[in-house]
Amino acid sequence: MRYELYYWPEIQGRGEFIRLTLEEAGADYRDVARQGGGGMSILGDKTILHPPFAPPVLKAGRLVIAQTANILMYLGTRHGLAPKNEAGKLWANQLQLTISDFLVEIHDTHHPIASSLYYEDQIGEAKRRSKLFLKERAPKFLNYFENAIARNGGKHLAGSKLTYPDLSLFQIVAGLHYAFPRAMASLEKKLPRVVKLRDEISKRPRVAAYLASKRRIPFNRSGIFRHYPELDA
Amino acid sequence: MRYELYYWPEIQGRGEFIRLTLEEAGADYRDVARQGGGGMSILGDKTILHPPFAPPVLKAGRLVIAQTANILMYLGTRHGLAPKNEAGKLWANQLQLTISDFLVEIHDTHHPIASSLYYEDQIGEAKRRSKLFLKERAPKFLNYFENAIARNGGKHLAGSKLTYPDLSLFQIVAGLHYAFPRAMASLEKKLPRVVKLRDEISKRPRVAAYLASKRRIPFNRSGIFRHYPELDA
Repeated sequence: MRYELYYWPEIQGRGEFIRLTLEEAGADYRDVARQGGGGMSILGDKTILHPPFAPPVLKAGRLVIAQTANILMYLGTRHGLAPKNEAGKLWANQLQLTISDFLVEIHDTHHPIASSLYYEDQIGEAKRRSKLFLKERAPKFLNYFENAIARNGGKHLAGSKLTYPDLSLFQIVAGLHYAFPRAMASLEKKLPRVVKLRDEISKRPRVAAYLASKRRIPFNRSGIFRHYPELDA
Repeated sequence: MRYELYYWPEIQGRGEFIRLTLEEAGADYRDVARQGGGGMSILGDKTILHPPFAPPVLKAGRLVIAQTANILMYLGTRHGLAPKNEAGKLWANQLQLTISDFLVEIHDTHHPIASSLYYEDQIGEAKRRSKLFLKERAPKFLNYFENAIARNGGKHLAGSKLTYPDLSLFQIVAGLHYAFPRAMASLEKKLPRVVKLRDEISKRPRVAAYLASKRRIPFNRSGIFRHYPELDA
């Protein structure tokens, strides 16, 4: 089956968590808005029984699935990138939902008032929020994942193999490095397992090929992870 | 099996979505921090293989499950409050995750800068965020759920019976009424299906008994839904 992924073509955003899993799975997919033919018209399609609130959206045969963690649960199970037993599946989903929560907080560092306003119209608030985010929230989330890897044997987040939350954690760490290089240089010193997992994932053949390809959109100031030096530590 | 729910004892918060589903299911559960004996010590328990990042946490036999949508997926499936086929299960989860996104935005109307600060230390930002939330975001989310009910036949969000996202939507609407009575009086006029679903759920025998009991913590200014007249329309 050839999947169709619908996501904004100019940014990594939430779509990147799906792209990474599709790439590591070696799945056949079309990144519709980037490859032409339909764009994002799926968002206004009134014939869809289960309408998406927002992208990313994955078409898998007759299924139309939205919400990042939901899509990843579906793909992970189908492509051997999720634990097989019930406790493991629930744990992988739990981790992914915590990553989703973290991602909202990362986004809101530069848009604490509204996504509909320009960054330039909320810089003061963004500085205030970012300072507390880097002091309190980023360490709390990152230490949580470091500890979760430790309890799970030191190499992965769930079970003995790579699963989709590992790929998502890779993306979170890569994005934080882009957005907050000074803060991350300091935070990383206390995250040996997270850093090791990030490095190992970046060297996996399919992930490495993807990251070196044009399919990987560079980080930029339209995405969720944005580098504004005035918001960094 | 007797469940154990761990959540802050003074507020409805995210725990309320779990409580409503447990009550409608007629499940045997202990609201641990409210009924004494252990409080919230589970959050620091280093023996848990799959540690929670934050409450709510549900103990179900040997399983320890966190993240609201994850717990609800588990409970919904076990207690006949979730669709039975794969497409329906994914849709219920997708709806619940959209409700989770909405809830974060509702919370951030009064805490746009940081949860660690008092409301009084971010009133200016809260006013700015709330104004745009009530103008743009609340109508967008609520119209989405209105439309989702319409596409699903007009009575429920998923399938032909009550499911856990219906109960969560009930809680969202009840909370918004408490927090933003003026704005909701206006918004509701265009949400006939959402209002009808809310009314019908409030009359279900188990839900009605729960809402009239002392188990239902009143809305208050420590929870996610907070009534500050200066933030309302």
